Amino acid sequence: MMKMNNIIEAIMGSDNFIITSHYSPDGDNLGSSIGLYYALKKLNKNVFFVLDDVLPINLKFLYEDIKVYKSEEVKVKDYNLISLDCGDKDRLCCSEYLKENYKMLINIDHHKSNDNYGDLNYVDPTASSTCEIIYDLLMRIDNKIIDKKIGNCLYTGLITDTGNFMYSNTNPSSFIMASNLLKLDIDKQGIIKNIYQNNPLNYVKILGDALNTLEVINGKIATIDLTYEMFKKNNISFNNVDGVVNYARDIQGIEVGILFKQKDLNVVKVSFRSKSYVDVNKIAQKFGGGGHMMASGCTIEDSLENVKKAIIKEVLNYI
Amino acid sequence: MMKMNNIIEAIMGSDNFIITSHYSPDGDNLGSSIGLYYALKKLNKNVFFVLDDVLPINLKFLYEDIKVYKSEEVKVKDYNLISLDCGDKDRLCCSEYLKENYKMLINIDHHKSNDNYGDLNYVDPTASSTCEIIYDLLMRIDNKIIDKKIGNCLYTGLITDTGNFMYSNTNPSSFIMASNLLKLDIDKQGIIKNIYQNNPLNYVKILGDALNTLEVINGKIATIDLTYEMFKKNNISFNNVDGVVNYARDIQGIEVGILFKQKDLNVVKVSFRSKSYVDVNKIAQKFGGGGHMMASGCTIEDSLENVKKAIIKEVLNYI
Repeated sequence: MMKMNNIIEAIMGSDNFIITSHYSPDGDNLGSSIGLYYALKKLNKNVFFVLDDVLPINLKFLYEDIKVYKSEEVKVKDYNLISLDCGDKDRLCCSEYLKENYKMLINIDHHKSNDNYGDLNYVDPTASSTCEIIYDLLMRIDNKIIDKKIGNCLYTGLITDTGNFMYSNTNPSSFIMASNLLKLDIDKQGIIKNIYQNNPLNYVKILGDALNTLEVINGKIATIDLTYEMFKKNNISFNNVDGVVNYARDIQGIEVGILFKQKDLNVVKVSFRSKSYVDVNKIAQKFGGGGHMMASGCTIEDSLENVKKAIIKEVLNYI
Repeated sequence: MMKMNNIIEAIMGSDNFIITSHYSPDGDNLGSSIGLYYALKKLNKNVFFVLDDVLPINLKFLYEDIKVYKSEEVKVKDYNLISLDCGDKDRLCCSEYLKENYKMLINIDHHKSNDNYGDLNYVDPTASSTCEIIYDLLMRIDNKIIDKKIGNCLYTGLITDTGNFMYSNTNPSSFIMASNLLKLDIDKQGIIKNIYQNNPLNYVKILGDALNTLEVINGKIATIDLTYEMFKKNNISFNNVDGVVNYARDIQGIEVGILFKQKDLNVVKVSFRSKSYVDVNKIAQKFGGGGHMMASGCTIEDSLENVKKAIIKEVLNYI
């Protein structure tokens, strides 16, 4: 409580702000940044949102009405830097100059790994999303300040970080926030269309190829391959297909789903997902990787065939 | 308001109840029926849940601890029949005898088409689900009566009927209900596992085959085929694959997704989904089918090739 009050005082007592966030923007960091940007504008603050990265096209509805600045375009003195949704100061997506010459650095985040690098810090790892923290912050500043536009931003981060309320980080308070935002007549269906009904054509094509490789071992393990040839044939980036592993896990009776992504002819990225009891973090660690109990990964330099053999042999020990 | 009070009085003033619902049980009718069953037990009522149909295996967690009666097994006189989530008395999944020899028929539903066939009726087409109506009903009877077990039932129907809060029937009150149930420590993650991470293996296999037929016409229409051979090869029922049409709609830039399901060599069921502006109900009606503006279907007796040609020609008029 104390800490959030300090942040509210710091915001209300200053005029110039630069908001920034992490590289590889997603729904929660863009939603929280742009939501807070609009709110600070309403409070008559001088505010810039800076992000030196390419913005994802499916989230264009969030940023199409504002200017997202590059670091070198911003000329403002005596600014407070507000860092949102970023666990590590090194990952802040702005220039070294902006990272160092602030009056005050305000760090607001929900990542457990956040090391409180700000002058003021509000880090709540139990929050579903940074958007939920910004929602609370704005409600405390003025419970009328959140309008439809700000609501659209905050709802976006809430659903992208909770898997549309599927993940276990969804709290009772997350649903209260959703209820209140819906009452503001936010464009919930439009947001869902942009986020969940907007797959690249080549993603759906490579998904078809991938599912044709589906194999079940022992009734408990399902594997899917994404080969080097499939990536070439479908002209899709290696990074855009991580969700495919869920198709292996989400089969009746399967405990561990594994995706083998052939990055290069002799480099295979392996993703693990478990459903109930297998700690796939341990398995990934044996191969130099890591992650969480139910979602982890590792990268192995060998042929697809050899990697599959070694991994399946290991996973069978946990079944 | 009035009507619900009448129903509460009728329930509190009687002792014997039979709860029943529609054929082809789903999350909302089982969830509301079994949730209400547990609550009436707590109120020391004599209550039977009757359903003369096969129960879906993925919802076993709802019914595994109770006896679901067949009509002929129930011997009770002077019963009130409570019909849940059923728009049409003919679709009630119990014997003609039970349908006619009640003291009072209480009809609780959220289907617009419900013709108020009960002696007492509570039909609210704006409610997300029958589970949400039962939630309100129970909260008015006693705001402490809903426990974890009842909460699991009601949450199941809430999410199956709202597509896990994705559909536009999700109301602010639906999120409040979700928040309150989560506070009761319901097994949200277990429910999600049972419903969304529990695909039949053959479904995932036929999905792979289907996606390999994906075609895009004019940048706005995407089609997927499920051929007679695929159904035979994958040994899966024709009725379990309707979700495949969403993969066609949910592509960037696509307005209409179409699934062609070859029921027999010369019978094709066509499913349409639109994203924003095309009224696919009109299109389906031209071929003797129907549905809603954004989801419709029709069945045509002809070869797959001819059906595809005719349908695509028609859909192009709407793009």
